Amino acid sequence: MAGNTLGRVFTVTSFGESHGPAIGCVVDGCPPGLALSAGDIQQDLDRRKPGTSRHVTQRQESDTVEILSGVFEGKTTGTPIALLIRNEDQRSRDYGNLIDTFRPGHADYTYWQKYGIRDHRGGGRSSARETAVRVAAAAIARKWLQEQHGVVIRGYLSQLGPIEAPFQSWETVDANPFFSANAEVVGKLESFMDELRKAGDSVGAKITAVAEHVPVGWGAPVYAKLDADLAGAMMSINAVKAVEIGAGFASVAQRGSEHSDELTPEGFVTNHAGGILGGISTGQNVVVTIAIKPTSSIRIPRRSIDKQGNPVTLETNGRHDPCVGIRATPIAEAMMALVLMDHALLHRAQNADVQTPTPKIPGSSTYGPVPASKKSTA
Amino acid sequence: MAGNTLGRVFTVTSFGESHGPAIGCVVDGCPPGLALSAGDIQQDLDRRKPGTSRHVTQRQESDTVEILSGVFEGKTTGTPIALLIRNEDQRSRDYGNLIDTFRPGHADYTYWQKYGIRDHRGGGRSSARETAVRVAAAAIARKWLQEQHGVVIRGYLSQLGPIEAPFQSWETVDANPFFSANAEVVGKLESFMDELRKAGDSVGAKITAVAEHVPVGWGAPVYAKLDADLAGAMMSINAVKAVEIGAGFASVAQRGSEHSDELTPEGFVTNHAGGILGGISTGQNVVVTIAIKPTSSIRIPRRSIDKQGNPVTLETNGRHDPCVGIRATPIAEAMMALVLMDHALLHRAQNADVQTPTPKIPGSSTYGPVPASKKSTA
Amino acid sequence: MAGNTLGRVFTVTSFGESHGPAIGCVVDGCPPGLALSAGDIQQDLDRRKPGTSRHVTQRQESDTVEILSGVFEGKTTGTPIALLIRNEDQRSRDYGNLIDTFRPGHADYTYWQKYGIRDHRGGGRSSARETAVRVAAAAIARKWLQEQHGVVIRGYLSQLGPIEAPFQSWETVDANPFFSANAEVVGKLESFMDELRKAGDSVGAKITAVAEHVPVGWGAPVYAKLDADLAGAMMSINAVKAVEIGAGFASVAQRGSEHSDELTPEGFVTNHAGGILGGISTGQNVVVTIAIKPTSSIRIPRRSIDKQGNPVTLETNGRHDPCVGIRATPIAEAMMALVLMDHALLHRAQNADVQTPTPKIPGSSTYGPVPASKKSTA
Amino acid sequence: MAGNTLGRVFTVTSFGESHGPAIGCVVDGCPPGLALSAGDIQQDLDRRKPGTSRHVTQRQESDTVEILSGVFEGKTTGTPIALLIRNEDQRSRDYGNLIDTFRPGHADYTYWQKYGIRDHRGGGRSSARETAVRVAAAAIARKWLQEQHGVVIRGYLSQLGPIEAPFQSWETVDANPFFSANAEVVGKLESFMDELRKAGDSVGAKITAVAEHVPVGWGAPVYAKLDADLAGAMMSINAVKAVEIGAGFASVAQRGSEHSDELTPEGFVTNHAGGILGGISTGQNVVVTIAIKPTSSIRIPRRSIDKQGNPVTLETNGRHDPCVGIRATPIAEAMMALVLMDHALLHRAQNADVQTPTPKIPGSSTYGPVPASKKSTA
Repeated sequence: MAGNTLGRVFTVTSFGESHGPAIGCVVDGCPPGLALSAGDIQQDLDRRKPGTSRHVTQRQESDTVEILSGVFEGKTTGTPIALLIRNEDQRSRDYGNLIDTFRPGHADYTYWQKYGIRDHRGGGRSSARETAVRVAAAAIARKWLQEQHGVVIRGYLSQLGPIEAPFQSWETVDANPFFSANAEVVGKLESFMDELRKAGDSVGAKITAVAEHVPVGWGAPVYAKLDADLAGAMMSINAVKAVEIGAGFASVAQRGSEHSDELTPEGFVTNHAGGILGGISTGQNVVVTIAIKPTSSIRIPRRSIDKQGNPVTLETNGRHDPCVGIRATPIAEAMMALVLMDHALLHRAQNADVQTPTPKIPGSSTYGPVPASKKSTA
Repeated sequence: MAGNTLGRVFTVTSFGESHGPAIGCVVDGCPPGLALSAGDIQQDLDRRKPGTSRHVTQRQESDTVEILSGVFEGKTTGTPIALLIRNEDQRSRDYGNLIDTFRPGHADYTYWQKYGIRDHRGGGRSSARETAVRVAAAAIARKWLQEQHGVVIRGYLSQLGPIEAPFQSWETVDANPFFSANAEVVGKLESFMDELRKAGDSVGAKITAVAEHVPVGWGAPVYAKLDADLAGAMMSINAVKAVEIGAGFASVAQRGSEHSDELTPEGFVTNHAGGILGGISTGQNVVVTIAIKPTSSIRIPRRSIDKQGNPVTLETNGRHDPCVGIRATPIAEAMMALVLMDHALLHRAQNADVQTPTPKIPGSSTYGPVPASKKSTA
Repeated sequence: MAGNTLGRVFTVTSFGESHGPAIGCVVDGCPPGLALSAGDIQQDLDRRKPGTSRHVTQRQESDTVEILSGVFEGKTTGTPIALLIRNEDQRSRDYGNLIDTFRPGHADYTYWQKYGIRDHRGGGRSSARETAVRVAAAAIARKWLQEQHGVVIRGYLSQLGPIEAPFQSWETVDANPFFSANAEVVGKLESFMDELRKAGDSVGAKITAVAEHVPVGWGAPVYAKLDADLAGAMMSINAVKAVEIGAGFASVAQRGSEHSDELTPEGFVTNHAGGILGGISTGQNVVVTIAIKPTSSIRIPRRSIDKQGNPVTLETNGRHDPCVGIRATPIAEAMMALVLMDHALLHRAQNADVQTPTPKIPGSSTYGPVPASKKSTA
Repeated sequence: MAGNTLGRVFTVTSFGESHGPAIGCVVDGCPPGLALSAGDIQQDLDRRKPGTSRHVTQRQESDTVEILSGVFEGKTTGTPIALLIRNEDQRSRDYGNLIDTFRPGHADYTYWQKYGIRDHRGGGRSSARETAVRVAAAAIARKWLQEQHGVVIRGYLSQLGPIEAPFQSWETVDANPFFSANAEVVGKLESFMDELRKAGDSVGAKITAVAEHVPVGWGAPVYAKLDADLAGAMMSINAVKAVEIGAGFASVAQRGSEHSDELTPEGFVTNHAGGILGGISTGQNVVVTIAIKPTSSIRIPRRSIDKQGNPVTLETNGRHDPCVGIRATPIAEAMMALVLMDHALLHRAQNADVQTPTPKIPGSSTYGPVPASKKSTA
């Protein structure tokens, strides 16, 4: 399959460059009869859009979505849903000096060597702008998952540079510009970002996404593991360099007697597994954490080469997020939703009739990765 | 696509249960004309097979592979290559007590709730035994990548439980039962494992896989990112809970001025990117690190439930690896090979004719993830 | 994979309803560097569009295509090419009486039973309007195939109702409103259609599509046969009820000594195979013929049922083609192009390096299916 | 996706050459809980196997199938079902003279030019032997379709060379070596074949496959049309040159007032559509007819070339079916079953919850393509 389609039976086919006329996607395989309006999608787009605080890029994009197909009289029809977002504030003049040089840490060099042609205005397909269509497409998945299964998908920034922000409360998340679930660190985050912007540098971040009420049984035991698809989807987000499920890297130092989540009739005791065992959802919260690298476009001068291979020095001005991670929470949620939706449909394709005498036991309330040293849930 | 096929144009379709008659796979899309014998595959299988030291499961499997198709007079023909490995030492009596109960940390509960039927003898499809077919299939990919592009894929155990084993030398890797690239820690690993086995407990591990000489340009910018496919493939290995590319989680605390790898006419200066930028290979070493959770089958008693939902206490005897990570290095290498092979072919499907005036600059010699605090290569 | 994507590595993902805001598609996997403008696509769309003669539907659609992505400074970039065509002349009032009834021969009943919701204005996704996007997408494939391999794809109406129109000359095809390659029958076709329109009835047609200069070696021996993919693609055109490759049904009554095309150093002697043997192109012309059923929307009253299952009588007025086959030639060419393009790329993915000492022998000049009774080429 | 996998969610991945050690396949996506034994599969294989009458090849193959995985205690588990059939009677000495020459009408020349390497013993992957695995895989689909939906799939030889054999009765089909549903023509078929064998020539055939009790609603409106997938699957059978759905080519000369099947509360009046409208099943019998070309291996001398391009004369001895169509009925049934199974699962993936107030109306009892001249069912 060509490389711009995600999913198996619920698919998203994405298109568009950051500085072309538009971005958008085709969502195929959506069940019919779901109530859906542009407003449902817009509210998710608005959470991701640029320009909402001084800590993110000032590019002005309304990110207004138009539904081109697949919805009739307010309901999905089961046919492809095409979503269109026109680009409004391209300002490609900012990129004139990038025609012949490759920005370090960017896809410029790899892109050029792969394709031999490149829309040098912004990142083209490598731009974080492409993630808007993921959020738009995922709004549909989230709505269906919520209505059909009560699945709730939320995320938060769990670390920014050196500052950890462990989960405290979902209420906090939308009350600060960082998607922090920890009210206490917000002041620290503000000062840190102000200093960073002044220094012309950038920094990485960690995002945690949690899906609650995912039924037991979604996924598959081998290549189509739920966690394998989640890992692939999360790593496909720009700038992501790592993915953890549940305890993640902490499980390296754990012992089996600590890591393996015990089952009781009252429910699972812990959730080091992050809601997935053997590639299949357990009925616990699905917990995924990702690492986002520092933005490569910084004002500090950096060495690079030009198209002929000569050495150059580059400093990137233009409008850029000093920490792309700040806007990444809705994107991580989106990828979670898209993968879960696909697996929900795949599961009923094969296993619609399965019934067992075993009760579905409840999960522990886990909203973050469990550190190796604690047995209680985070 | 159904869930037991990996890849887009170079595909592996896997089958077989740990305690059924056989495991195997069909490898489709292999270019014709590659010299290939069962021996080429066997040598890789032998590196993974059980029973090679006191630190791993004592199940006796010769893992003898038979090539059923796709090879004629010692060369691949371009048709599907079917590989068959008969199971020899099932000893399913060890599992009699597991018919009605679910082992904590195992796929037993999720599997049962998904399918309503389960081969309780061992893990069925969830058994690590399935990974033998990945290694077998990958032997084909490795050979082609090596012959056509000089790609060399190697891995090592970079941590076992709390013991870090930073890269020192490839020579060491096959000279100890742990695939450690660090000769100094081997003694420590031996004692640690002996103690662990005595305690009836298990532990996690970290594996690093490195592909050298991958040309610049493999991958794609959005969903079919090379790192996205690597993450998915790695996370599809049993017991893997996390995947890092290059600096991985260390990039969270890095600044852009540190993380972004500078380019000079003499080559890249660092390799925090792990050989992939914007989803496309840079020409540097591709570096992937994975976390493997502690084995769930331990002798220490654990709480669980039975099929009717009643509480039970379980201790698992039988033959199990106290650290599945010890045997995981060849498997991580295999997944690396399978993903690279697929992308090598995808790249020439679309871009066979691309040429640029820009020289391919060499990579830095990176064999491990770069810690946030160092700018030199590991 | 969800059902609105065609192809394996060169893919078209289609969207849009006949009476919604727009139709369009995303073309993914196109090689970079191909010169491409909206005009290149428009000329093919214009050949398919309605309203060009009194024998087709009078719906007025300019079918103006907009390229939304994937083209930069007049060249494809290797990223997805999104094409958008706004609907202009929906006149959905014509369909008011169809809210609660099912037109015989249409997808109304099946669609409704499948989805439980239906855009009753026109056929929704079942409308022939969807074929515009196939033509638009295929314009890209045709251009690449022509430039890279000299492949020329042309088609003609080979029968209309009872009137056969055997191939005479390609020049004729664009000089009459029927795409007839036979100048002599045009007058007969005109009168036949005038009579039919007056009767309020409709009729079927047969279209033949021919691809010249397809290199030997495209396709695959088993499920991905070139003819299998052509058959699937052709049958996916609205109203198509049959597909033939080469001699097609005539081969039933042929003997092997007649059917099998002999090879000589000067070339193939005949082309009963239609340019494909064992699923792989022979280097001869690829010849495909399809049957198109009579339009179901006719003025003659027909029995049907309504949504509650009660009997009704229907006569369809509105604007309809009395023979959809008249406009189908560009669509058949389009599907031919899309399948060939996909196989061109698949072939080089797997077999880019293959070389043989055997000369490529030329094909016989076949432009139509060979009747069973003749050994000479048509 | 590589070329040896068929299907979207219920997939068959096939392997094996006619003269290698074995053929077989992996069936993935089968719902769990289906009772299945090797015997269930063997009975279908026995209907296809060679050597059952003097009219077919005398190659002796028991075609004994072994289930390698996916079945536990007599039931499918939802994991991949691997099927293995060892080759027993290869007699590759018959093919010694074919090392350097290409048989006219065979895939020899195309295969060689594509792959540059070829198992010259028999047709390799192009051999009709590969169809055994389709029949084996389809046995699973047929069983599930029958048990879950009451779907019955049967086929018959509707023409052999010039001799038409219109449907009379299903009872006749298994009572003669031709799968003729017409008892009266059997004598004629016998004499015709005896004469043909004496002449050292071969002939084509027509097969009709019928699926009864397919529910309304399977399929999709655009590329994944049920008829498109059927056409692709049927054309992927060796030697098939044409596919018709329902009236097929007869619909060219039909008028809309004749072709379009009227609906009444008592059911459809006719079935020219062959059970599919707009790509979606109607609830009528699904009727597909295919044309099979005459075998290319004949004793009559034919012109060809050798690997260096020099002219040669070939006569094929060895063991061959003078009419491969005679054994093709079970294969056509198999492809019908595989496509229906895939669509049954796809339908419930997307539309499991759909309900309408409209009664499902019954189909007319059609067991063959309806000639253009008749309005009654065949």
